[in-house]
Amino acid sequence: MVNNSRKLITIVGGGNIGSAWATVFLLHGYRVSLYENDFEVHAKSKKSIKKGLNLFIESNNLDSKKVNNILCNISYFKDLIRALSGTKYVIEAINENLNDKINIFKNISQNIDEDVVIASSSSFLPISKISEKTINKDRCLNLHPGNPPYLLKFAEIVPSKFTSKKALDQTKCLLKSIKLHPILLKKEVDGFVFNRLQGALLKEAYSLINNDIVEANDIDLIVRKGLGLRWAVMGPFETIDLNTKGGIEKHSKIMIPFYKSMFSKKGKSNFEKKSIKKVIAERRKLLPLGKMSARISWRDKKIFKLINLLK
Amino acid sequence: MVNNSRKLITIVGGGNIGSAWATVFLLHGYRVSLYENDFEVHAKSKKSIKKGLNLFIESNNLDSKKVNNILCNISYFKDLIRALSGTKYVIEAINENLNDKINIFKNISQNIDEDVVIASSSSFLPISKISEKTINKDRCLNLHPGNPPYLLKFAEIVPSKFTSKKALDQTKCLLKSIKLHPILLKKEVDGFVFNRLQGALLKEAYSLINNDIVEANDIDLIVRKGLGLRWAVMGPFETIDLNTKGGIEKHSKIMIPFYKSMFSKKGKSNFEKKSIKKVIAERRKLLPLGKMSARISWRDKKIFKLINLLK
Repeated sequence: MVNNSRKLITIVGGGNIGSAWATVFLLHGYRVSLYENDFEVHAKSKKSIKKGLNLFIESNNLDSKKVNNILCNISYFKDLIRALSGTKYVIEAINENLNDKINIFKNISQNIDEDVVIASSSSFLPISKISEKTINKDRCLNLHPGNPPYLLKFAEIVPSKFTSKKALDQTKCLLKSIKLHPILLKKEVDGFVFNRLQGALLKEAYSLINNDIVEANDIDLIVRKGLGLRWAVMGPFETIDLNTKGGIEKHSKIMIPFYKSMFSKKGKSNFEKKSIKKVIAERRKLLPLGKMSARISWRDKKIFKLINLLK
Repeated sequence: MVNNSRKLITIVGGGNIGSAWATVFLLHGYRVSLYENDFEVHAKSKKSIKKGLNLFIESNNLDSKKVNNILCNISYFKDLIRALSGTKYVIEAINENLNDKINIFKNISQNIDEDVVIASSSSFLPISKISEKTINKDRCLNLHPGNPPYLLKFAEIVPSKFTSKKALDQTKCLLKSIKLHPILLKKEVDGFVFNRLQGALLKEAYSLINNDIVEANDIDLIVRKGLGLRWAVMGPFETIDLNTKGGIEKHSKIMIPFYKSMFSKKGKSNFEKKSIKKVIAERRKLLPLGKMSARISWRDKKIFKLINLLK
């Protein structure tokens, strides 16, 4: 923890993602200043950070006595300029509104050293647009975390064509220091990698519902008992590599022609309303909104155990 | 184990899938007769079944003293008629060749009682075609297991338009008796559910390689550290349901329009050769074919632990 303890990270935005970013930096000995103009959100954010830390305590990954010390390392600000004072790295995590992001990037860039990186946590707004009015847009990039980043240990780094190698290298180092795997995209693409992969599977899942092949809960089950188990241990390419004698080359000869023809057929659906309505109804029957938060805690504890097991 | 101990299951084909089917039935107290016309395959199959049982012993899920008794419950035959004598359920698991399957289904149906179900393990050949020349095609269905079925605890049941409710019900009961979740498809669809979902993600993954966005190993990493972990704990619909305040309905308003536009753009690729070659090269660099079998054992042990943890 000592090496990071002097560095100050500024998080802009105190919602779920901002608070989760704060948690992971605090856990690794950083000082954090969190800017959030809505004072009520400060309290929510503190609560959410404590909840995150509790996960580590419950799984014996954190000594409960250290929590108070850790919480001393975060300061909340309603004033952006004060939150940025002395910062070494800025992560923006406000709502997904392009104009708001453009403006806050401009503001941030006017109030920090010229070489401090400004990263956006956006899930889909590209940094080339967000950094339009930023001073020195070569230090700007997308830094899209898993949700939450203290459980899903990676983040996508996406450069615009302006982004400097220095900013990318600094970001990779920063991620490694908080034990996240940097996934460096070579260029901008809608949805980055995580959401494109998730979206591709969801598109097919909704299409199966739309064509009345199977129930939504059966899709969840077959992924949970099958693909998910595999993919938690190894990714999709290693999975097919090990699934056929002769490896992925043999797989490409046997299975790819079949996949290709499967997805070339007409009558494709693309997130039809009918299917979405059906899945919403099925989900609400299985889990009323009131039980959501308990289920999220259950999920996070399970994932935590899986991570420890897969180490 | 007592209840199943009198029932005889016939497996037709002694390759990986046939042997894995045999393993799961043996583990649950069934008697198995395995037909395989290639005598050399008998020895391989026995070895593969022992390897499967060892996984259970190593993880303290099976008493090693019981192995010899279990292995007494399987008999190997080079003669189809003898393998079918007294059978209560037939599972075909020969190579993925349509004509061979049509012929063996016809042969099987001529040599068993009229109401014994004949199920095909094919990953993609539809039962409507396989059962073309079968006597009483109403007892035929696709029964597509995870690989191996003693680790991935589900199987897809796919009826043709001829398949009887009785055959489906019997199959569901059989699967439950060996602790597999039956995933009942309402009608035939190319690739069933498992391979359509896997194929959809692979298609997008290859497309990301084709467009030079990211390396194959980074895709494996982001799935392993992110989507896979989530999906091992809960399926894709529950995942998005818990990921947005307001659940899947809110998700459908925020994210679906974005996904929709993402996948509506031109320039889609569909398993381009360039990308496949690139991934093959990267995989072989990461894992030489000679180390494949050790890695498969590693994978299966990990999955076994995950299953125990997720119980």
